[in-house]
Amino acid sequence: MALDEERQALVIIDQTKLPGRMELLSLTETEEIHRAIRLLQVRGAPAIGVAAAIGIYLAARKAGNGGDFYERFMDAKEYLASARPTAVNLFWALDRMAAVVTAHRELPPAEITALLRVEALAIRDEDIAMCRAIGEYGLSLIKDGDGILTHCNAGHLATVRYGTALAPIHLGHERGMGFRVYTDETRPLLQGARLSAFELVSHGVDTTVICDNMASQVMKNGWIDAVFVGADRIAANGDVCNKIGTSGVAILAKHYGIPFYVCAPSSTIDMKIAGGGDIPIEERGAGEVTEMWYREPVAPAGVRVYNPAFDITDHELVGAIITERGIIRPPLADGLRQVMGD
Amino acid sequence: MALDEERQALVIIDQTKLPGRMELLSLTETEEIHRAIRLLQVRGAPAIGVAAAIGIYLAARKAGNGGDFYERFMDAKEYLASARPTAVNLFWALDRMAAVVTAHRELPPAEITALLRVEALAIRDEDIAMCRAIGEYGLSLIKDGDGILTHCNAGHLATVRYGTALAPIHLGHERGMGFRVYTDETRPLLQGARLSAFELVSHGVDTTVICDNMASQVMKNGWIDAVFVGADRIAANGDVCNKIGTSGVAILAKHYGIPFYVCAPSSTIDMKIAGGGDIPIEERGAGEVTEMWYREPVAPAGVRVYNPAFDITDHELVGAIITERGIIRPPLADGLRQVMGD
Repeated sequence: MALDEERQALVIIDQTKLPGRMELLSLTETEEIHRAIRLLQVRGAPAIGVAAAIGIYLAARKAGNGGDFYERFMDAKEYLASARPTAVNLFWALDRMAAVVTAHRELPPAEITALLRVEALAIRDEDIAMCRAIGEYGLSLIKDGDGILTHCNAGHLATVRYGTALAPIHLGHERGMGFRVYTDETRPLLQGARLSAFELVSHGVDTTVICDNMASQVMKNGWIDAVFVGADRIAANGDVCNKIGTSGVAILAKHYGIPFYVCAPSSTIDMKIAGGGDIPIEERGAGEVTEMWYREPVAPAGVRVYNPAFDITDHELVGAIITERGIIRPPLADGLRQVMGD
Repeated sequence: MALDEERQALVIIDQTKLPGRMELLSLTETEEIHRAIRLLQVRGAPAIGVAAAIGIYLAARKAGNGGDFYERFMDAKEYLASARPTAVNLFWALDRMAAVVTAHRELPPAEITALLRVEALAIRDEDIAMCRAIGEYGLSLIKDGDGILTHCNAGHLATVRYGTALAPIHLGHERGMGFRVYTDETRPLLQGARLSAFELVSHGVDTTVICDNMASQVMKNGWIDAVFVGADRIAANGDVCNKIGTSGVAILAKHYGIPFYVCAPSSTIDMKIAGGGDIPIEERGAGEVTEMWYREPVAPAGVRVYNPAFDITDHELVGAIITERGIIRPPLADGLRQVMGD
């Protein structure tokens, strides 16, 4: 993801086309950026935040120098915020951009717009720095040649660069280290097979795709030294909400004595949530499960489907939470309190 | 599966068309029956054995009354045996049919053929009785209203009737009991979503399909009272070789304190194999994993794939092995020795 200053465009990889086609989208209109977020052409909480920040900067440039600059900016902000109603980073990034406008309302629009450009690029750079820090901390836990299992996609494609769970691998690879990465395909939407495998293979990392139900055999074979996953929300007791299937991987890792690490920015930690039981789990449509094979139904008409998008991994299964502020070891509740300054 | 005596045909459900189309095939030619076994239109070790027995009986009828009856029979036997080179039940059933011919070689072909009909129907009836016994024993371990998780398809469609892992459910359902069955979709070939869900729904059983990686969450929700799976081979120490993903389900069941039961005929127990480590695991083609979604690749070109068809479940994870001869409880090695009369 990048800001193309010459064309005044947000440039993204269309993730809905991966891995079949690597298609760059150059988006100049606010409507196009709204659509890209809504249709998951850009996905992953950090990436959505950065896309929205660049998007609202581009919208501000178009708003012109008239007396209605503030109103036009706020309209664009509200419009972009409606692209995905539940993505917290989207609102956070747009609010941060709006604060710049509000703080400098007396300046001419051209000057405000220049400040918005700086803020958008700062949000982008902070995301890179945060992922890089997670990568450094994570890298300290593994060694050259290790076998790493990951689930879903918490990599480059979900952030600006490095990712969270994949940051240690990307960073180590840049430094000439070699890892054997096993990526669960991650049913039902196959983010592991489609996205993680794509970004790892395109960087030249030794990558093997497995079906989710093969993780146990891969661990039993002795091929895995550590598991790295991302997180959507972390409760104050260390319970981790992440892509469905994460808790199963954590239980297998414990059974086989393999360390299980959660990589996430500190903004993912929600100290107001006592434990994972208080995090509601989104259930998605049955069609994701039943209608993916050859465009024909793969399950009989009338069958029920349970399709939770996330699950809760008990804090007792988590070996460490790796944030940009450092590595939090069990007891996680104490470590989280310390890191979050509560 | 049935012998249609009027049309002299083997009648099967074409399993490659399920669950999209319920298509009955009426096969009269030996070539058609060979093809059905080879293309997995009929699958599941017990079902293949019965199909071959009926197939060789039909071939014998066509062999006529000439002096070359024995040779023609043996040619047909060899031909049918080549349909799937690794299916033990196929050879076992054909050898049993051949023994009838050899023992009565002095009789006229028409009389031998009559005896072959009796033997084929005996093999079919024994399969039903074996599955029914497994069902009775399995049913004694669960109660009305229980939630049952199963993996892959070890049901009606893999046998003549009842199945093995699904026999307790089918039998209980016949008696008016209600179960909530959760069936793992079972990647990569989706036998759980396609076949188990089909046969359960068509019998009116309350059935929910889940992706393999959702089993942990379903167990955590408290919805599962017992796990029933089949087996492809059981070692003398109780290690179980079954469809890939089975060992993961067993580890999850142990973690959540849910009993894990293996249902299999005693012919599956291989006392010559000391432990699961001695069972070679078939690896299948990468395309099963990478090319199933919308006929487009779901993983990037050049990525490695690990696609084992089976895995080994450690005997310490197995709560009981349920055979037609009774329930074998830990220590499994002692129980298996007793049941197998070694």
